[in-house]
Amino acid sequence: MQKDNQAVLLHSGGQDSTTCLMWAIKKFKKVYVLSFDYGQRHKSELKAAHQIAKKLNLPHKTIKLPVIKELTKNALTDKKIKISTGKGLPSTFVDGRNQMFLTVAAIYAKQKGIPNLVTGVCQTDYSGYPDCRDEFVKSLQKTLRLAMEFPFKIYAPLMNLTKAETVKLMKKLGGMELLKYTHTCYEGTRPACGKCPACKLRLKGFKEAGEVDPINYKK
Amino acid sequence: MQKDNQAVLLHSGGQDSTTCLMWAIKKFKKVYVLSFDYGQRHKSELKAAHQIAKKLNLPHKTIKLPVIKELTKNALTDKKIKISTGKGLPSTFVDGRNQMFLTVAAIYAKQKGIPNLVTGVCQTDYSGYPDCRDEFVKSLQKTLRLAMEFPFKIYAPLMNLTKAETVKLMKKLGGMELLKYTHTCYEGTRPACGKCPACKLRLKGFKEAGEVDPINYKK
Repeated sequence: MQKDNQAVLLHSGGQDSTTCLMWAIKKFKKVYVLSFDYGQRHKSELKAAHQIAKKLNLPHKTIKLPVIKELTKNALTDKKIKISTGKGLPSTFVDGRNQMFLTVAAIYAKQKGIPNLVTGVCQTDYSGYPDCRDEFVKSLQKTLRLAMEFPFKIYAPLMNLTKAETVKLMKKLGGMELLKYTHTCYEGTRPACGKCPACKLRLKGFKEAGEVDPINYKK
Repeated sequence: MQKDNQAVLLHSGGQDSTTCLMWAIKKFKKVYVLSFDYGQRHKSELKAAHQIAKKLNLPHKTIKLPVIKELTKNALTDKKIKISTGKGLPSTFVDGRNQMFLTVAAIYAKQKGIPNLVTGVCQTDYSGYPDCRDEFVKSLQKTLRLAMEFPFKIYAPLMNLTKAETVKLMKKLGGMELLKYTHTCYEGTRPACGKCPACKLRLKGFKEAGEVDPINYKK
């Protein structure tokens, strides 16, 4: 039986997917939270995802995908690689990551009869990640439908929002409290470093939205 | 550096991918052979792939993808499920398998600077697998390019051939001898059962091509 009022939400433990989660529980009757252990340096992301799902009393599953770390070289899985955002793809870009995540999420969702997938990808505050673009998400949705003959629908509610708009959306959804459990920092420190590209983008968003970020930063 | 004269070939250990392999070594200067251990019932497929790559003196890598067996229920990974081909998708269809394989192969290939992927999928002797259709392969190629900003090209040289034409192609390529190492039977027996849908399709192809299948079948 096809369950059109249920969704599988991909959760990284960060601000964006937590905002999407609040969005999803208002839109769908039941939401399954899915995270991926792909060998990322900071397991705090996975702990954050689990904690947030628990707070909302939602089922949470972490799927192991060691193949990503086995095959790729990037600053998110290898601490020897410096975080850089110069010409070309940033060193934090993980080849094929979103495609793998959404493909596995689709396989998982289909077994439950669920066509809806929710992801926090966003093309506005463009970090140079090609697999965060709307064009990619639309193409992947079509490919998934063809692959499994199932009417998958990928929702990316933050796709065209700025970080400030995402903060405002979360406020509107009544989820600001939840953001204190999220993890964003590329360096993986707590308090967060406040200096890496991910921290900077997050801080800029809160500032522009006129809100206070509930997590702690290094002085 | 982009290596346009090299390719990564996906090898299941079967007749089709072995034929593609012969095709690929004539078309490309260097071919990397890639297989997937996704929890399939018959490890003889993987042994066959390794043996064939070795015969041709080509690098062979098997990538573990246990997530497929963890998430899906089908007759190829679960011996409790009967092989059936009635209405709807056959019980041997593995949700998302080709999309996962080609996505992982693309990630692997990109790390080496290789844009070319070769797969043995075929839509002619249609087994009811949606992820063997040309439409799917074309859509996936587009999605992969968008995901990683890399000019992937998926070659599926058997896409529009009948099984008989595939046998004839292999004869032309001079690879008939290699077929004796291939594994096709869904039951995983040696000699092959000769009765499952995969064996029947294979036997029909050899018969129509007027050639003798070099593997043994149960009397």
